[in-house]
Amino acid sequence: MLDYYREHQEEFLEGLKAWLRIPSISTLPEHAADVRRAAEFLRDQLEAAGLSSAEIIEGNGHPLVYAEWLGAPGKPTLLLYGHYDVQPPDPLEEWKSPPFEPEIRDSNLYARGASDDKGQTWILVKAVEGLLKTRGRLPVNVRFLVEGEEESGGGHITAYVASRPPRLAADAAVICDTEMFAAGLPTICVGLRGIVYAEIDVQGAKRDLHSGLYGGAAPNPLQALAEIVCALKDREGRIHIPGFYDRVRPPSPKELEAWRRLPFDEQRYRDEELGVPDLVGEPGYSVFERTWARPTFEVHGIRGGFTGEGAKTVIPARATAKVSMRLVADQQPQEAAEQLRQAVAAVCPRGVRAEVRVLHSAGPSLVDPENPFVRAAAESLTETFGKETVFVRSGGSIPIVGVFQQHLGIPSVLMGFGLPDDNLHAPNEKFHLPNLWRGIEAVARYLEKLGQ
Amino acid sequence: MLDYYREHQEEFLEGLKAWLRIPSISTLPEHAADVRRAAEFLRDQLEAAGLSSAEIIEGNGHPLVYAEWLGAPGKPTLLLYGHYDVQPPDPLEEWKSPPFEPEIRDSNLYARGASDDKGQTWILVKAVEGLLKTRGRLPVNVRFLVEGEEESGGGHITAYVASRPPRLAADAAVICDTEMFAAGLPTICVGLRGIVYAEIDVQGAKRDLHSGLYGGAAPNPLQALAEIVCALKDREGRIHIPGFYDRVRPPSPKELEAWRRLPFDEQRYRDEELGVPDLVGEPGYSVFERTWARPTFEVHGIRGGFTGEGAKTVIPARATAKVSMRLVADQQPQEAAEQLRQAVAAVCPRGVRAEVRVLHSAGPSLVDPENPFVRAAAESLTETFGKETVFVRSGGSIPIVGVFQQHLGIPSVLMGFGLPDDNLHAPNEKFHLPNLWRGIEAVARYLEKLGQ
Repeated sequence: MLDYYREHQEEFLEGLKAWLRIPSISTLPEHAADVRRAAEFLRDQLEAAGLSSAEIIEGNGHPLVYAEWLGAPGKPTLLLYGHYDVQPPDPLEEWKSPPFEPEIRDSNLYARGASDDKGQTWILVKAVEGLLKTRGRLPVNVRFLVEGEEESGGGHITAYVASRPPRLAADAAVICDTEMFAAGLPTICVGLRGIVYAEIDVQGAKRDLHSGLYGGAAPNPLQALAEIVCALKDREGRIHIPGFYDRVRPPSPKELEAWRRLPFDEQRYRDEELGVPDLVGEPGYSVFERTWARPTFEVHGIRGGFTGEGAKTVIPARATAKVSMRLVADQQPQEAAEQLRQAVAAVCPRGVRAEVRVLHSAGPSLVDPENPFVRAAAESLTETFGKETVFVRSGGSIPIVGVFQQHLGIPSVLMGFGLPDDNLHAPNEKFHLPNLWRGIEAVARYLEKLGQ
Repeated sequence: MLDYYREHQEEFLEGLKAWLRIPSISTLPEHAADVRRAAEFLRDQLEAAGLSSAEIIEGNGHPLVYAEWLGAPGKPTLLLYGHYDVQPPDPLEEWKSPPFEPEIRDSNLYARGASDDKGQTWILVKAVEGLLKTRGRLPVNVRFLVEGEEESGGGHITAYVASRPPRLAADAAVICDTEMFAAGLPTICVGLRGIVYAEIDVQGAKRDLHSGLYGGAAPNPLQALAEIVCALKDREGRIHIPGFYDRVRPPSPKELEAWRRLPFDEQRYRDEELGVPDLVGEPGYSVFERTWARPTFEVHGIRGGFTGEGAKTVIPARATAKVSMRLVADQQPQEAAEQLRQAVAAVCPRGVRAEVRVLHSAGPSLVDPENPFVRAAAESLTETFGKETVFVRSGGSIPIVGVFQQHLGIPSVLMGFGLPDDNLHAPNEKFHLPNLWRGIEAVARYLEKLGQ
């Protein structure tokens, strides 16, 4: 079986590159047809891999891709999850090679989606293909469910899973959409932050105003947004949204101790990975606590006024901030959204009206490292990489984990093969190719281990 | 002479509309050819009006337009100033008729530049044309100097005036680029605010970051900009730039008393003109003081991150705020710019680097209402409108006033015919047509009065 993988490396790579060339940007309506093409491409791949019932599942939003192999009665059933949609590529001018023309440089494959998440979904597809092509069967039952709205927060998969269709019956989910703690260090992610993504709209005067004629007496929605944002988070990184921290569950002393043993050079993280003069964030918490176990409030963009070249002296009638709150166990998205609404109303400056509009949200998740599906995954990774698997959390949000838990009652095993410098959501996203091959091997071992 | 104006109304209007159709947006490089076309159009008009030496003056930036009539030896010489460039028209979708397709609705001419400043420059051109066509001569000498960089803060006219060319020798300048205090109320503006327009660049990490993976530890340049902006101006409108207020000259008790007599309904200004729940600004100052006699700090736009439709969870590597400070007598632009630089450096949050880049600046100005050129203008306006002329200031910036004072040693007479609801720098800019006709009449009377 491992021979099959080695012999088909070139073909696997060309297949992945073909998939990456499809700009399946789920958040931009003009790319809807590309998103569908990426779904159909995957369906065809799953069919060619030897799975049955490969099909597109339509719904409200970008389609789901489903396929199954259920020829191992009495064995566990895994729900294999990934997503075929990608983030927008802007700012385009910062890409060294175009985002949708995959290019290999120094053992890395550069393209939007290379790591997040086409490359990692490819691991699941090709691991299964290898087993089916060489043995004609799998050691366990599998069901693929791959979505196209992970980056846009669309609700199709949630609605589908919530309808609890019989074809999603499974014992555990496997998700390849996280990263390894360090190159060569096998990693399972046991915790994810949730998210509330919202827009704060501020309305000032009924029309744009000349800042010379009205400046000094007229409210400025951009200034008001700055005031709101600063009122919600202070210079120390503390979030001033009443009630926001109430449900935050601190990590256990054992987990904190394990985090302290992780290889981590804070100075290198600051100077090289980020390239900033100082890290920021809440005093009294380590970087891992700040990014894994503490909630955040971030501004992602402020629209309004004039941002082109040159000078325009306008006081805009309105302005909008795109913001998110990352949530940790046991915060609840709807409650946090309501807390944000109330906090914005409370701190809104005079002269303007502010409104919060939630775009999407997802709960945080935590899984138990002692779960047998997690343990088997850790062993498979350890055997493949030749190093003890570490358990970490991620500060990112994979809403589907909470959805699987809530509606299917199954835990998710997060085996990630991305690297910290893969430039997720940023220009020059890449996937480290050795991790593609080891990832395929580790997943194959995992299925075998679970089938024993 | 007045008959000439009445008989040629239709022709004057068609000429102005033709000029307004040229999108001479000086701040957008892609409109450079349009800016030149607008200059050439004006040169041809001045020539056709009977002026001599009508020509384009080239230099570093958009061209100047010059023309003269010097056939009244022993009489005063006026330098007639206007600008033929316009502001960008965005947001386009808010215009009821396209910005460069002039349309008359309810006695108003709607177009970008209708009031600011093609329409008002047209008053000077047509007043002179009427006198020359009906009498073959003017009562005084005039020199037109019309620029194409007023809205972009370009330096061509400043450099040209600073070179003190003999052809600019004059006794006073006349500028039609301000507004009447109210419809029907003849107005002379004796004070203008200056401006420093700058960009504040904030650099965070060396690349865009995923807010899930890095949020909580990585500096966010958008948050940092919000913190800088809030540190520079508090919620009461007080500016916290050390030394900024030191040179501010308060209005005289007499001027303040005159302002109190101006017809002004603050509630209507708030509810109808602006449509805001509250006015803002420094406590203890009237609206006139805030907008005419106090300096400001305003944000005009914040670039960085993601502002498109949908959701992108990025912490941008950098962000830029476009800001301006309006200055009042006796503040000095270079000093204020330096104070801003030092203030930004002092309040810059940890983790980011901030830099201030000044795009353009101009000093404030104040002229003496007792100056004979100002008095004659006031009388001409009073005779034309049948109401006592009021003296006001404007919160806007007309840098050329300070330039004329500094290099030519002449005062500027600001006769404005715009109206407060003309939507300067905003969608649906308009010019009230009755003011076009009265403006022409008032300027003609003014030239006659000065020639007596």
